[in-house]
Order: sequence, then C-alpha cells, then structure tokens
Amino acid sequence: MSEQQQESNIVKGADSWFNKYTAVETSPEGTFKGVKDRFNGITVDSSMETCSADSFPTVLKRSLEHWIHSKNRGIWFKVHLSAASWIPELVNNGFQFHHAKNTFVMLYRWLPTIESANIPPYSHTMVGVGALVINERNQVLVVSENYALIAGSWKLPGGYVEPNENFIDAAIREVMEETNVRTKFDSVVSIRHAHGAGFGCSDLYIVMALTPLTQEISKCNREIAKCEWMDVNEYLTHPKVHETNRNFVRTYLEYKRHGVRIDCTEEMHQVLKKRYNIYSVAKVTDGEESVDSSNSNVCSTLKL
Amino acid sequence: MSEQQQESNIVKGADSWFNKYTAVETSPEGTFKGVKDRFNGITVDSSMETCSADSFPTVLKRSLEHWIHSKNRGIWFKVHLSAASWIPELVNNGFQFHHAKNTFVMLYRWLPTIESANIPPYSHTMVGVGALVINERNQVLVVSENYALIAGSWKLPGGYVEPNENFIDAAIREVMEETNVRTKFDSVVSIRHAHGAGFGCSDLYIVMALTPLTQEISKCNREIAKCEWMDVNEYLTHPKVHETNRNFVRTYLEYKRHGVRIDCTEEMHQVLKKRYNIYSVAKVTDGEESVDSSNSNVCSTLKL
Repeated sequence: MSEQQQESNIVKGADSWFNKYTAVETSPEGTFKGVKDRFNGITVDSSMETCSADSFPTVLKRSLEHWIHSKNRGIWFKVHLSAASWIPELVNNGFQFHHAKNTFVMLYRWLPTIESANIPPYSHTMVGVGALVINERNQVLVVSENYALIAGSWKLPGGYVEPNENFIDAAIREVMEETNVRTKFDSVVSIRHAHGAGFGCSDLYIVMALTPLTQEISKCNREIAKCEWMDVNEYLTHPKVHETNRNFVRTYLEYKRHGVRIDCTEEMHQVLKKRYNIYSVAKVTDGEESVDSSNSNVCSTLKL
Repeated sequence: MSEQQQESNIVKGADSWFNKYTAVETSPEGTFKGVKDRFNGITVDSSMETCSADSFPTVLKRSLEHWIHSKNRGIWFKVHLSAASWIPELVNNGFQFHHAKNTFVMLYRWLPTIESANIPPYSHTMVGVGALVINERNQVLVVSENYALIAGSWKLPGGYVEPNENFIDAAIREVMEETNVRTKFDSVVSIRHAHGAGFGCSDLYIVMALTPLTQEISKCNREIAKCEWMDVNEYLTHPKVHETNRNFVRTYLEYKRHGVRIDCTEEMHQVLKKRYNIYSVAKVTDGEESVDSSNSNVCSTLKL
C-alpha cells in the first residue's frame, strides 16, 4: 500500500493541484467544485473555492447531499488559515481532523455507511540522524547540548531530518551547523526505533559514519554548549557518554574490521521517473565488490 | 535533538497529562491554566479547561497578555473536536496549525519577538514495510493488489506501519493479513527512501526477509486480487515484477551467500527505562559471531 499510495501521488504530481482544480467541470449549482481522486473521494481546497463564511453552511449542506447521492467515499477539506471559520461547521457535520501543517488543516469525513473507513493515518514517525565522525587520529566528534536533559552529557552531532531532505544530506548539514566540520558519507551504522517520542510520535534515529574533510571546530552557540574531538578509547569508557552511543561506535569499529558497510545507492523508477535512495549492505568482505555494484548507481553523496 | 526531545517526553510520561494539568497552581483570574514545559512554553488543552465559546475571546486575550508579560515562549492549544469553535479566534490571534489527529488539532504561536521560532515541524515520513518471504522450495510469496496502479503487477506483501508498532511486527502482521501465512524475522534487506508520497510526506519502505512457518495461502479479498508462491528465478525475470522489487531479492540472495544479515536487537535505556529496537549488520561471515552478540540482547522477534 505504501508503494501504491506513493505511485499514485507521483502520477498526480505530473499535473499540478491548480491545474487539476481548474480542470474540474462545473459542479451542481451552489455546491463546491472539489477534485475527485481515484478512490472516488473528493478534496475541497478552501483557497480554490469562493465561498463566504455566511454561505458556507448552505453550500456544505448542498455539497454533502450531492456527494452522498453520487456515492462518493472519502470527503477531504483542506482548510487554510484564511478560511478557519469553516472548521466549526465542518466538525458539526461529522468531519474529523486528519493532519495539519503551518498554514492549513486537512479534515475528512467518510461517507459510505455500508463500508468501514479505509484511510491510513498520517505520518507518526519523527526521523532524526546522528553522525559518527572519526578522524585519522582516532578521535570522534562529540557535542554537549545547551538544553541537554542530562547536563554535560556528550552525544553525537545530529538532529531532525527536514521535509524532503535525504538522510545523508541531513547528517552532513547537522554536523556543519553544529560544529562547522565538513564531512562526506561513509556508512550507515545503526538504526534505532522507539516509541513515545515528541508530539506523541515514534522516533527513528539513523546513525551514520561520516568522514571528516576538515578538522577545525566552530560550534553553534545557540544549540551547543561544548564540542570537541574526543579520543575514541576515552569515548568508549566516558561516564558522560550513554551506553547506546558507545555501542554505535563499537558497531562501526566492527564494520571496519570486517570491511562491511551499509551503503546508499540512488535508483530511478523506470515508469514513474521517481528517485529512490536504497540502503543495503555493501562490500561484504575486503577486496570484494559491493553487493550493489551491479546497479552501477551513483551514491547520493557524490552529488554533494 | 531527536534524542533530547525523546528523553524529555519519557520523563514527562512518568507523570500523566491529567496529573500535570490538575497540579497547576491557579493562574490569574480569567486566564487559562495551561501546563508549562521546560522550554518555558505553555500548553492549553481544551478538554481540561472550562471556557464557553462566548467567553473564549476574552479569556484568550487576557491569557496572551499574561503570557507575554511572563516572557513565555511557545504557546500551544490542543483543541478537541468539541471546542472547534475556538479555532477561528485562535487564528485571528496569530496562531498557526502544527499537527492534527482524528479528534484534535494542535495550534501554536511563538511569542518572543527578539528570538526566532525554534519549533521542529511535525513528522513528515510515512513508514511502510515489505516482506520477502522465501520458502524451502525457493519460492517467493507475491501478491497483486485490487487497486494496483499497474494492473496485474506482482509485489511483496506489506503496508504501512501502525502507530507504536515495531517494524518486524508490522511486516509479520501484513503478511498474515494479506496471505494468512505465518512468518518469523530473518533479516532487514534494504531500506528505500523517497519524497513526494501520500499526504505530501516522504516515504520510507523497509524490506525485510521473513521465514515462512506455514505454507497455505488464504488471501485477503478486500485488498488482494491474487497471491501465490512464485519461483524465485521466475520472479527475477517476470515482466510484471518491478526492477526495484527484483533487486531486493538479488540483494537478499547476496546476503545469504555471504552470511550477512541486518539484525534487530532490543535495548533498554538504563536511565529512562525506554526500549529501543536497534538494527545493524550481524554475522559478517559464516560461523563468526554476530557483531552485536556482545550485548546479549534479545532479538525482538523472540517475543512473537
């Protein structure tokens, strides 16, 4: 379903939302235009309709009657800040919230009464990256945050992945922002998954080894209290380093010893012309070819 | 930051939201109680306050004056469906949307004028799993979906990870739901990351190899049009199998050849008593110990 949903949206992407909206044939008098989807749902975008706050209840009532008569299924309302007055009336008419971003909230109502709602929940996983940067003197780049929960604890530089950002780009950016050290991708080390994180989400923390291209540290004063190159052996026994963070380093040293990496290759879907980043184990033993070498793909970091 | 945010919430979790709210000392006359966070922000929950729709504008005005005077920073309003009438007034007072779930929307306003807003965006990554189930006769379990974009195409069983669900549990559940085949975890194979997926999110697709414990197929008629055990060699050349899906199988066969896996171990944070699932490369060569064996952790699948 993940793939199907994704492919569906790419195909939609070929045509802009604006074009789709303006291409809609006229709807019955006094109803919203909306855009139909392939699941026989309708999406109404407040910024694409002309409807005053006063006339909204009447237009909504007529529209719902029309959609029920037409056997439409999921009805979506994308309500921008400027149309916030629509929201209480939508809720009065059985709509619920689905997701929201700064300037809009998406509400939905499932119309069929003989079929249970089949709408996946919105994203519920916060994705962050941590960077394991070890230099040629066997020192690891560590930071101590201003607002650290355990005061003075040392951790790896990192932070949240931004919307539409690749993980490797996110790790390189966070290291640069926090320490001003330039880096390039080496290997994903470990992926940590847990529940009960910020905003009630689950948390995915992707730790990757980056190779430093510069050594000089210039820390971000807003976020970071201390930053230094710490000897790896000190890091592995330091009382202010959490065991899980030590373990990422041990795991990476094992990878180095065995000549194993988790590499990133970039692929293009032949039909959808969509780019994927694929992470998988490469260079299983020293001197052997990468598992993915047959694809002759370009590692995404080569673009950086 | 990911880690910090997460730890912060766990500590909060020790005390329930209800307890926190009722523990708040009285706020000035005619203002909301709200709960203070460690970043000097305030969260108001509509279900924990008594404020009529009529008096809302006045109480909001007084509260904002109080918070500005007290140098509070981020102000959060968790507005449940029953208080939807608050939303237009909040928007009139400079609030924006942050995120929403079925029964509530969270709005926020950043009060400081001399400091830019420092609030991470909500989760923007949909996480799905795909299951590579190969039996002892070298056959792979494949499905063709009812609403497939490319009609008749064969893909791996799978779907979205549910809130608070572990990835392995999700893959086993999806295989069971779609095909009725029971499985156990073997190895993560590849992780695919792309942008422009459903609801404007990015898409993370985690493919893992599962070992079948049963063989008989009984498909889910709602979602699945066809389901069968397909010879791996046929799968690798089948015109109705997408190249990326073929490649997951090739990658897995390479792992088998080299005796490498991406294993899952479960760890417990000593201080926060929080459980983590950690994915990393194990059993680098045949007969050698797992990279993670020193941790003597229990693989999460052992619980199943």
